Amino acid sequence: MVEKFINSNWLLFNKISRHLYHEVVSQMPIIDYHNHLNPHFLAANKQFENLTDLWIREDPYKHRAMRINGIDEAGITGNSTDKEKFLNWVSTYPKTIGNPLFHWSALELERTFGISEMLNSENAGRIWNQCNEMLQDEEFRMQNIVGKWNVELLCTSDNVLDDLSAHDYVNQLNTGFDLLPSLRADSLLNYEDGFLHSFIQQMEECTRLSIHSIEDFLQAIILRLDYFKDHGCCLSDHGLDAGFEYIKTDQDTASLIFDKLMSSQIISDTESVQLRSFMLLFLGREYAKRQWIMQLHIGAHRKTSTRLRKLVGPAGGFACIGNTCNVDSLTKYFDELECHNLLPQIILYTLNPADNAVFASITGSYAEDGIMGKIQFGPAWWYNDHYDGLRKHLTDLASTGLLGTFIGMTTDSRSVLSLSRHEYFRRILCNLMGEWAENGLIPADLDLLSQLIKDIAYNNIKLKLTKNSKKWQKAIKEAK
Amino acid sequence: MVEKFINSNWLLFNKISRHLYHEVVSQMPIIDYHNHLNPHFLAANKQFENLTDLWIREDPYKHRAMRINGIDEAGITGNSTDKEKFLNWVSTYPKTIGNPLFHWSALELERTFGISEMLNSENAGRIWNQCNEMLQDEEFRMQNIVGKWNVELLCTSDNVLDDLSAHDYVNQLNTGFDLLPSLRADSLLNYEDGFLHSFIQQMEECTRLSIHSIEDFLQAIILRLDYFKDHGCCLSDHGLDAGFEYIKTDQDTASLIFDKLMSSQIISDTESVQLRSFMLLFLGREYAKRQWIMQLHIGAHRKTSTRLRKLVGPAGGFACIGNTCNVDSLTKYFDELECHNLLPQIILYTLNPADNAVFASITGSYAEDGIMGKIQFGPAWWYNDHYDGLRKHLTDLASTGLLGTFIGMTTDSRSVLSLSRHEYFRRILCNLMGEWAENGLIPADLDLLSQLIKDIAYNNIKLKLTKNSKKWQKAIKEAK
Amino acid sequence: MVEKFINSNWLLFNKISRHLYHEVVSQMPIIDYHNHLNPHFLAANKQFENLTDLWIREDPYKHRAMRINGIDEAGITGNSTDKEKFLNWVSTYPKTIGNPLFHWSALELERTFGISEMLNSENAGRIWNQCNEMLQDEEFRMQNIVGKWNVELLCTSDNVLDDLSAHDYVNQLNTGFDLLPSLRADSLLNYEDGFLHSFIQQMEECTRLSIHSIEDFLQAIILRLDYFKDHGCCLSDHGLDAGFEYIKTDQDTASLIFDKLMSSQIISDTESVQLRSFMLLFLGREYAKRQWIMQLHIGAHRKTSTRLRKLVGPAGGFACIGNTCNVDSLTKYFDELECHNLLPQIILYTLNPADNAVFASITGSYAEDGIMGKIQFGPAWWYNDHYDGLRKHLTDLASTGLLGTFIGMTTDSRSVLSLSRHEYFRRILCNLMGEWAENGLIPADLDLLSQLIKDIAYNNIKLKLTKNSKKWQKAIKEAK
Repeated sequence: MVEKFINSNWLLFNKISRHLYHEVVSQMPIIDYHNHLNPHFLAANKQFENLTDLWIREDPYKHRAMRINGIDEAGITGNSTDKEKFLNWVSTYPKTIGNPLFHWSALELERTFGISEMLNSENAGRIWNQCNEMLQDEEFRMQNIVGKWNVELLCTSDNVLDDLSAHDYVNQLNTGFDLLPSLRADSLLNYEDGFLHSFIQQMEECTRLSIHSIEDFLQAIILRLDYFKDHGCCLSDHGLDAGFEYIKTDQDTASLIFDKLMSSQIISDTESVQLRSFMLLFLGREYAKRQWIMQLHIGAHRKTSTRLRKLVGPAGGFACIGNTCNVDSLTKYFDELECHNLLPQIILYTLNPADNAVFASITGSYAEDGIMGKIQFGPAWWYNDHYDGLRKHLTDLASTGLLGTFIGMTTDSRSVLSLSRHEYFRRILCNLMGEWAENGLIPADLDLLSQLIKDIAYNNIKLKLTKNSKKWQKAIKEAK
Repeated sequence: MVEKFINSNWLLFNKISRHLYHEVVSQMPIIDYHNHLNPHFLAANKQFENLTDLWIREDPYKHRAMRINGIDEAGITGNSTDKEKFLNWVSTYPKTIGNPLFHWSALELERTFGISEMLNSENAGRIWNQCNEMLQDEEFRMQNIVGKWNVELLCTSDNVLDDLSAHDYVNQLNTGFDLLPSLRADSLLNYEDGFLHSFIQQMEECTRLSIHSIEDFLQAIILRLDYFKDHGCCLSDHGLDAGFEYIKTDQDTASLIFDKLMSSQIISDTESVQLRSFMLLFLGREYAKRQWIMQLHIGAHRKTSTRLRKLVGPAGGFACIGNTCNVDSLTKYFDELECHNLLPQIILYTLNPADNAVFASITGSYAEDGIMGKIQFGPAWWYNDHYDGLRKHLTDLASTGLLGTFIGMTTDSRSVLSLSRHEYFRRILCNLMGEWAENGLIPADLDLLSQLIKDIAYNNIKLKLTKNSKKWQKAIKEAK
Repeated sequence: MVEKFINSNWLLFNKISRHLYHEVVSQMPIIDYHNHLNPHFLAANKQFENLTDLWIREDPYKHRAMRINGIDEAGITGNSTDKEKFLNWVSTYPKTIGNPLFHWSALELERTFGISEMLNSENAGRIWNQCNEMLQDEEFRMQNIVGKWNVELLCTSDNVLDDLSAHDYVNQLNTGFDLLPSLRADSLLNYEDGFLHSFIQQMEECTRLSIHSIEDFLQAIILRLDYFKDHGCCLSDHGLDAGFEYIKTDQDTASLIFDKLMSSQIISDTESVQLRSFMLLFLGREYAKRQWIMQLHIGAHRKTSTRLRKLVGPAGGFACIGNTCNVDSLTKYFDELECHNLLPQIILYTLNPADNAVFASITGSYAEDGIMGKIQFGPAWWYNDHYDGLRKHLTDLASTGLLGTFIGMTTDSRSVLSLSRHEYFRRILCNLMGEWAENGLIPADLDLLSQLIKDIAYNNIKLKLTKNSKKWQKAIKEAK
């Protein structure tokens, strides 16, 4: 009836697009500089129990779609069997038309298992059995799945107190790819519900420091930053949820608020903002000193359903897009760092696409001699990582920023199958350039366009990370 | 010179689009679940005086376009003759290119009167006479115009104190369509300029209750909700204008503020928000108990020109799009309802298209086992109900929500001619799916796409309303 | 390898587009009603030293792109030679793909110097020499470059204390175009950092009035408005940066705040908003009395990098797009003016494209009998003045406003080469109409579309300005 959906020219509408994809970028290595892969699973070279274990269990996108479809929570994250959960996903799948889940799922089944049929209720049983059988094979262990994608580097997202030996372990294996940590530092900025108090105790255990004051706290953080740096970390990351505010705050003020929290006093909303502002300033400077790149994920609204938070945990896929960013706060923060000559390189992500042009414009508001693309408008994030969202992001970035300096895609995903999103991104990028060339918006100059696409897909991020991570430079040297 | 503008393949650019429209959806019944048709006009089977009476007199869209064009207000809503007003519209019409008025007007003249010429100053006189003559015919009375559109159900928008006997009257006629009320409850949330005081008096007359306290007020509201329910109502509706805020408020606080209003004291802005929040919580729960679907029309900015408000009334077409929605307030409201297990089904409408992605994302933030599409991102509303707006809405909904669960179009209009907007929507929907299929973004699988389009155009809303309206179920049974 | 990039049908994708551009609009005169050309350069008929002097030295767009590319500031705005700066721009140029700079630069080189090659490192030296040689020619003096573009009128942007004799001087020359001032009145609303104190001193010198009170200040302003009017001014302009608020304020309150500022006391943020609101109200009324058109440039966020502000001045290209507009403040301001029957004609510009629909909707919120397009959503401004931004602006305006009343493009630029942006805009406009016609979204009626395009490109703004500027009417008469 239908020709193969994911065919070789999928999403490539004209000759130039196809040339750029097939001849220029399809074989280039992948640097996935921000993801949520589990380093312990990678170290253990995890074997997946079945298709649900690989494909559904930890995928909040699919859980969310099933919920919208009215599937019982038991059949999504609860007590149902893995096969039942798979079948619930199958029944939801046709309704995802126009959603990236539709594309991703087809691409993942095709690239991982060679399944090119559209998943439906008729073939579901057969596909379930077929995939589960294949998953018993060595070839489908986690490292081997990564291996299918010509991956050069994976940067995981690691909490400040995490042990990083899994990364070291993987790097001394002969996997073909490197595994570096990146610092997800949100726990340093969480002053709600007594979180800090118990976190400090864990930090004392981890660092073997006594923490009685904000000075002690900063000292302990520095120890951890150095530990991350010693393990090759060159990226940090903060989630600045919708409503993020920045208020210039000195250490004395921050110290008083810190002491209040440590003595279990209640602090005001303003004090919370002040302490967070102080800490962000401190951290930004420390990142700059270490030549780390700081990522800011801005605009999620995570407090929605208390019911779902209790049922499925804080990252269960029920967050929504929050209000647009407070530009005044963000630019004040950057300005204060820059005034002390300690503004690190930044990658900005927004969850609210109404902020695309704003963020693209900020890429030109701060700069540093000799640093190409110091402020990056990072790739379309989370709810924006769909066909139109990726095109819109590229167009907005190009229109208001400097496309040729863009560092390209990262998956930001917990699933190893999401590495296919680099293919998705590259096809969309090549197609957009091909469209522009075909319409005469840009010259049909293949040398010019090939260079642009190689820079975005690989060269620019490679340059940034090799400049910044001594560990990785060393690893690269040794590997050669 | 020009081929017929509204031809059979209008807005359908390829084979799949045409197949989907002509073979799948064009003959499906229409459920118009939210409009502002006058039930008394329907009951009286109104005959229209002339084309201005049918087409211009109550159409704020056309008034607004004429105003922008510099037409004197007298020639729009004032003392000029109906023919003069018609000619003013004719002179404005060519300037509406790119505006939905251009499409709607052409479609309405074609589908109602069979006029396929472009309206212009040369043919205006002839068309005026021709239409006015036709309007004398029985075939052009209001019920008969509805009858042209294969309408199964109309849900009007009725104030809380309205008498609903007109609906009953129409339903026992053999019109071919059902007429249900829906509750527009804005008067319950209006605490400005002494409005509440006089409203309570009307409410006392209507319900024959004495209202001295908030408890009395709530009791009277319950009487009216039950009255609406007895007449088959299964939908409510609130306009939450730009700036909507929600503050958790207990009944004691609300009671004090209510008492202040009743004794003609001035309340603060915060108190107004608090009372509104309390009432919204109460109403949301009562809707949930009755299994009603709650509609929220968010983001209008109605306070613009005091001059025009005085001249042409509050709904005169001079409102503008307000600032984007306060996501924190909206989600807090939903969460509080859900925490008590009394979150009704919701249809969200936004007037600000910069909120499209936000609202599409909220569809996944609350859910209920067994309810498909519990939170709906309703169709492109008011200023967004144009060609690009409808496409953008569908794309945004698909990208961030679950397209297959969408309940489709409603006219939200005072004009019976606006029923043609279902055709407009269906053509745009079919064309978008055809485009996607032609570009390989989705499989060219006609079974899959036909199911999707039938669900959106009819099945999903039919399922929702038959589940919720006993009255309508009964009516359906009796009709068969 | 590549065909000429800027060929005759550049950006014109179909027959109708080409007809509309080549046969209808390409030879129409240009009215550039808002730019930042230097009237003294025009009066002196400036000869440019070299390509950098003409093309790079005062172009913050190019400076910004070079900064993002990591070029040293010395090589952008600092001590490097003009040739080095040119080469830095050349090395940045290929990375601007998708940015308007890519299109503008190609168009400017082609239309000014007849250079149709793509600028690159290989031909840079040759082009540098070739252009510099041509710039020695009379034909490339500033008035002559303007002459290449069939310009009828230029409106510069002039500060309230500026001497306008340069305009008079140019107007008595036989240049083929008129030069009118327009009032950029931002210095009247700047209450920061003691600015007002020194500004008042300059104002006293200029007007020979003693200014001791707000009454004196208003009197001095009126003198200057009349001076501008006497020189043919019929447009004013204010930059309302992101965060603009309006608070209704009476003269007594404003007077007290003014006195505080004059006695060097610190005023609060609210007082600053109050004084600005009062002054805006006063100015709006005075503009209305003089039948001036008031331009509002809304949504820039200019306070970003303190470092760059010190290095390259306040207009150095490092501003970003600010938060969306406060709709409540804007409409309150217009309403208060209208309530006194003194709302002038308005042109609204937004820097944040998320506000496009909002601003297009406001065009219908205020009106005046007999004035076509009283509130204009002005053309895509600054960061929005790119291919997609111009299309989006036209689509948003058409969808929510009345396209046929639009007054079209203006360059808003300091560079005389930017006059080519009228060609850019006209090509994009013709192409969009051609696309719509080809897709059957509008009739392929060439008379209808020709009229629309002529109105937008020239007739509408011509009508507005000839109604309002007596000086210009006189100039036109004399010229004929």
